[in-house]
Amino acid sequence: MPRQVTAFSNATVKRLRSLRDKKGRRTEGLFLAEGLRILTEARDSGRLPEILAFSPEGARHSLAAEIIAATEAAGGEAIETTPDILSKMSGKDNPQMLLGAYRQPDTSIQRIDRIRAPLWIAAQALRDPGNIGTILRTGDAVGAGGLILIDDSADPFSVEAVRASMGAVFTQEVATTRWPEFIAWVRSGEAHLVGTSLKATKDYLEAEYRRPCFLLIGNEQQGLPADYEAECDLLVKIPMRGRADSLNAAMAAAVMAFAIKASWR
Amino acid sequence: MPRQVTAFSNATVKRLRSLRDKKGRRTEGLFLAEGLRILTEARDSGRLPEILAFSPEGARHSLAAEIIAATEAAGGEAIETTPDILSKMSGKDNPQMLLGAYRQPDTSIQRIDRIRAPLWIAAQALRDPGNIGTILRTGDAVGAGGLILIDDSADPFSVEAVRASMGAVFTQEVATTRWPEFIAWVRSGEAHLVGTSLKATKDYLEAEYRRPCFLLIGNEQQGLPADYEAECDLLVKIPMRGRADSLNAAMAAAVMAFAIKASWR
Repeated sequence: MPRQVTAFSNATVKRLRSLRDKKGRRTEGLFLAEGLRILTEARDSGRLPEILAFSPEGARHSLAAEIIAATEAAGGEAIETTPDILSKMSGKDNPQMLLGAYRQPDTSIQRIDRIRAPLWIAAQALRDPGNIGTILRTGDAVGAGGLILIDDSADPFSVEAVRASMGAVFTQEVATTRWPEFIAWVRSGEAHLVGTSLKATKDYLEAEYRRPCFLLIGNEQQGLPADYEAECDLLVKIPMRGRADSLNAAMAAAVMAFAIKASWR
Repeated sequence: MPRQVTAFSNATVKRLRSLRDKKGRRTEGLFLAEGLRILTEARDSGRLPEILAFSPEGARHSLAAEIIAATEAAGGEAIETTPDILSKMSGKDNPQMLLGAYRQPDTSIQRIDRIRAPLWIAAQALRDPGNIGTILRTGDAVGAGGLILIDDSADPFSVEAVRASMGAVFTQEVATTRWPEFIAWVRSGEAHLVGTSLKATKDYLEAEYRRPCFLLIGNEQQGLPADYEAECDLLVKIPMRGRADSLNAAMAAAVMAFAIKASWR
């Protein structure tokens, strides 16, 4: 039976609130996801929150009530609270009716089973959590296996990244690693490592992509370092006709991922 | 000779600051763009700011100094100010060395010369200024003519949209219109109106796209209204293999725009 919590000073409220910050997420090993759509996506992927906060509106909503019941049945804690407190926890003026705290998965690259999907997206030193979430969503749409974050990257479990992923954080695998570890792992099995580069001469539409393909996307500002490019099995360019010198990193990932998928038909 | 301004209460500082809000932009007919890269893009596209604020660092930078001199030569006002004041005007903690206020172009759809480019992107009721800027940047990369914003849309001249466009707001045409006016205009000349729809049966890779092609992108939440879809000459779908039900609007625009361009090779 869910408890009712109406005090900002409640320990569970404070604990959920702490997950907006990276430090809190690291301490707790949890991350936040909000909204019926994303929590349903999570449930359909077999994931339930360890802590679930919901508004009175949520308690009356049949789909939300299913998630509340499933969370409690699985031993999670569910609390009914006010929209004000939900707003404080999520940092949004218009809070969703559900807010869940989920256990962070193990993001070791060793856990990735590369044969499970024909395409994996790897991104180096992404700074924008919105780009990370958007690339996860693209990966989900294109049928990729997951996203491998290389070097110092924004947190894929931040509220902004989870929100932009629209639930794909629950359907895509996420690994975090550094370049030497990534290269050692990628070379320990089959892999076609494909980088995009403004310096490449091969057009992305004329290249042949082999499976499992690892699409490597560079940082938003600098693109890929030259020594990372040198490690790639294939470098391709997306010809640009405009004057701005490159696509947004998330756009480049989407255009490349869909082109690779199209080349396999 | 640029004036030095160090007071937050200075009238020019207040005027620039007002451009962060839609009301101020409407009153002044101006919009803000920040940073050497974007202002250089503007200058290379023949656009100079009417008002330019720069930091002492900007005054010492040779490319920035060129833009300062060109602005004054063209009759614009240039002021040297402090990083604190630049930060207040741009709303960013780390202000750029240059901040310009540019005249808003006429966004009447009648001004669009459709034969000038093979592809135009049209988007309906976009809510996120970052998506608008990102789609402008994609349009620039793919060689589109511009972006037509249909119905109630976020402001393409907001600071967020201009920033996300990375300068493409100066290289792409921008029109704002409503659906009946858009349809009347599009049907007054040659046009292949292409919508993306989850209900379409035609795969986007198997369709034939005619020039000038108008790619119609739906709102982030609802997609295109059914009666808008019914007006399209062609409806295509991007097959999704994941569980999240759609791509981000800006991603869908990028995947479609590059696929259309690829189909013409």
